[in-house]
Amino acid sequence: MAAIRSAFCSNGGNSEMTMTASALKERSLLGLKELSSSEIGSILDRAAYWESRTEKVVPVLKDRFVANMFFENSTRTRFSFEMAEKRLGAEVLNFSAAVSSVEKGESIHDTVRTLESMGIDAGVIRLKPVGLLADLATKVSMPLINAGDGNNEHPTQALLDLYTMKKHFGELKGLKVSIIGDIKHSRVARSNLWALQKFGAEVKLCAPEIMQAPELGSYAPYVSMDEALCADVVMMLRVQLERHAEGLLRSAEQYRLEYGLTEERAALLAPHVIIMHPAPINRNVEIDDAVVEHPQSRIFKQMSNGVPIRMAVVERAMK
Amino acid sequence: MAAIRSAFCSNGGNSEMTMTASALKERSLLGLKELSSSEIGSILDRAAYWESRTEKVVPVLKDRFVANMFFENSTRTRFSFEMAEKRLGAEVLNFSAAVSSVEKGESIHDTVRTLESMGIDAGVIRLKPVGLLADLATKVSMPLINAGDGNNEHPTQALLDLYTMKKHFGELKGLKVSIIGDIKHSRVARSNLWALQKFGAEVKLCAPEIMQAPELGSYAPYVSMDEALCADVVMMLRVQLERHAEGLLRSAEQYRLEYGLTEERAALLAPHVIIMHPAPINRNVEIDDAVVEHPQSRIFKQMSNGVPIRMAVVERAMK
Amino acid sequence: MAAIRSAFCSNGGNSEMTMTASALKERSLLGLKELSSSEIGSILDRAAYWESRTEKVVPVLKDRFVANMFFENSTRTRFSFEMAEKRLGAEVLNFSAAVSSVEKGESIHDTVRTLESMGIDAGVIRLKPVGLLADLATKVSMPLINAGDGNNEHPTQALLDLYTMKKHFGELKGLKVSIIGDIKHSRVARSNLWALQKFGAEVKLCAPEIMQAPELGSYAPYVSMDEALCADVVMMLRVQLERHAEGLLRSAEQYRLEYGLTEERAALLAPHVIIMHPAPINRNVEIDDAVVEHPQSRIFKQMSNGVPIRMAVVERAMK
Repeated sequence: MAAIRSAFCSNGGNSEMTMTASALKERSLLGLKELSSSEIGSILDRAAYWESRTEKVVPVLKDRFVANMFFENSTRTRFSFEMAEKRLGAEVLNFSAAVSSVEKGESIHDTVRTLESMGIDAGVIRLKPVGLLADLATKVSMPLINAGDGNNEHPTQALLDLYTMKKHFGELKGLKVSIIGDIKHSRVARSNLWALQKFGAEVKLCAPEIMQAPELGSYAPYVSMDEALCADVVMMLRVQLERHAEGLLRSAEQYRLEYGLTEERAALLAPHVIIMHPAPINRNVEIDDAVVEHPQSRIFKQMSNGVPIRMAVVERAMK
Repeated sequence: MAAIRSAFCSNGGNSEMTMTASALKERSLLGLKELSSSEIGSILDRAAYWESRTEKVVPVLKDRFVANMFFENSTRTRFSFEMAEKRLGAEVLNFSAAVSSVEKGESIHDTVRTLESMGIDAGVIRLKPVGLLADLATKVSMPLINAGDGNNEHPTQALLDLYTMKKHFGELKGLKVSIIGDIKHSRVARSNLWALQKFGAEVKLCAPEIMQAPELGSYAPYVSMDEALCADVVMMLRVQLERHAEGLLRSAEQYRLEYGLTEERAALLAPHVIIMHPAPINRNVEIDDAVVEHPQSRIFKQMSNGVPIRMAVVERAMK
Repeated sequence: MAAIRSAFCSNGGNSEMTMTASALKERSLLGLKELSSSEIGSILDRAAYWESRTEKVVPVLKDRFVANMFFENSTRTRFSFEMAEKRLGAEVLNFSAAVSSVEKGESIHDTVRTLESMGIDAGVIRLKPVGLLADLATKVSMPLINAGDGNNEHPTQALLDLYTMKKHFGELKGLKVSIIGDIKHSRVARSNLWALQKFGAEVKLCAPEIMQAPELGSYAPYVSMDEALCADVVMMLRVQLERHAEGLLRSAEQYRLEYGLTEERAALLAPHVIIMHPAPINRNVEIDDAVVEHPQSRIFKQMSNGVPIRMAVVERAMK
């Protein structure tokens, strides 16, 4: 039978068109550290274009398939990506680890490779293990968009933050931005730091000692809370209560008093300062309940800006 | 930089078109207690229209976005809404609390406000805390549809119940409806009670003492099981086994004997009586296995009627 | 009121068009044991047609509704079906048991009947209890597609396996296929066995004694690992670690040494042999990490082939 077979043998997996590695890299968005300011600027400009479009759906990605692969849960980020994808007319498939076979020991790698094999055109991915995403990106031939990887990067969050600041202040150069809170575990802090510095913004960090990331100290200074509040942008971070376990839970009120944006502190901010937070919020821990919708707060505006930013990023991945 | 900035400053969040509070109230569906019989009648009529349409999809809500926000799980209700929304051509985004950041302490309020910020046009919401929905409705500017809130109301369930009764009997006026079971924890009982009385139906309640809601006694009498079965409609409620914990679990069979619609009792019903249940069913607790698909049962018909009812309600929210 | 009522009474549930039992049976796919080789052949041919189509979406099922009802979780299989359904233009509704009211004690039967009542046109279903699916299929009037039922059958997996083999070898007749691993709990092994024999392939089984299914011994011989590797197709099965609990976990390495496709064993395979695995994979248990993407491996190709196979199966259910 061997002779018959060889005549019929296919030539393996070569029939799939694969992107060149460099084209793929230009479409993926793994982090902002590796992006140039002009690449970031193009995304911000394209987001402004999408925000200006009044139609809810502009089907430039009709018949294209995107998978939102959340190996770490997130209502907000998944929803924002799904809105963006559907506004571009893409077909969307979701899964979250909580309902996946990942629980059965399947590796993230195999899942992503599997979805790629099924014909997905691009993948949005959130996962916990640091370093895995960069490795994954070398092994799949579809563009990947980082929706948060461990405490490494969360590029679309930082992009929407930059967009929010730029929209408010006109430019990023010279802007004084203070990032306050659990720097150590924050991918949001890292992505903002890398990107803001490319545009000449002045970043300051503020955190209790156990929440500082010493390796970031050479990029931006750690300052006191009073000094941090002297800025143009006050960006509060979510305290990862679950990561500091008992130690912090016993002192949530103490954290608030020392590092929280309390009503009292908010009242003392200069009138031009804007308040930001990537959410979800621990009300009355890192920010007081009454400050969330303070006139100077841009927190819900940030969420709103996330959709055109993600439209720009998803479109870039698939065009 | 302040001068430059002020020139570029946006004017905050005023660019969003917001509905007037009264327009919003007319589109939301928080409960039936506050609706007039003519408003309810219009929804029932529109549902009949939708049921009469033979096309599976009539895209009157093309390019409109609905979020099904289930902070309490429900396969059946979410599916029914999703069918309705997709039959109207809407874009649908789902989440259930089990896979959301609500677990991380994020408040329901913030999640709903977030989804609104992202450009959702209407939200279907199921949640446990009583009173929260009414509060939420004053804080968001998109229409909200109640898919069950604690033990307060479940308006679309009652609407489909009324629709089922009206379709069978022609009119609701004078109809004798007995609601039997765990009245205390039942939002279905409450929504039906408020709505049926607006149409002149005669409602009787029947429950063991621990499952009675004393505050409803002034609206409808509590009667014995024998008296309850003398009616036009026998509406059995799901016993919330999980809410009565051990106390009831030890006596599921006793509950069945005293308050269940057993095969014996079903056989004694007058031939014109119809049997209803909002499901999911505890077979052989509140209703015997053999009675679920009894010729007089309308249980699966109710589920079927849920889709045109929800089409009418979702359309009303977004037109 | 009785007189008025009878005039208005509907005639019950007879308005729904119901398929004849035989038409329904021809559209459902419960297992391969009951299908003829010509029926299986038609599905394989149609899959080849779908694979040849270059358009991503061919909306032959526009405005038709499919429910993916997963009472047992599976990322891969659900995704593959969803891709197939969306490539055919169908409207897709998903649920997995982990977020359903099944947890509240609702029976699978009631859920499926409910979704049917809501107007779903076909259901893809995965569930654990053996025998329930056949029973269900007699009680609903929509086509059902088995996406895995207990250790009984997993027909679409075997179809994609056959498709992969046929594509590679040209024909199935005379092909020597060894199925190696946890035969006892494997629906994949059973579906492949039934189907391969219809086409005249020679199937051998290989498993440690505790993983053998004695009742299959009369259909195919149990052979040693060495003998099993002398074949055209080596199909490794996932070891259901969770089913053999401690007994196996203590000896995963021992299992690998005795029944795993190690790098050493893979190197000794004849060059024409192909390696298959239904996934998800336990790397370094039933198959070595380095063998997964071995040049002779067709594992990711299998996943890729799953989409056109499921397009053929879903289309067959709904046309």
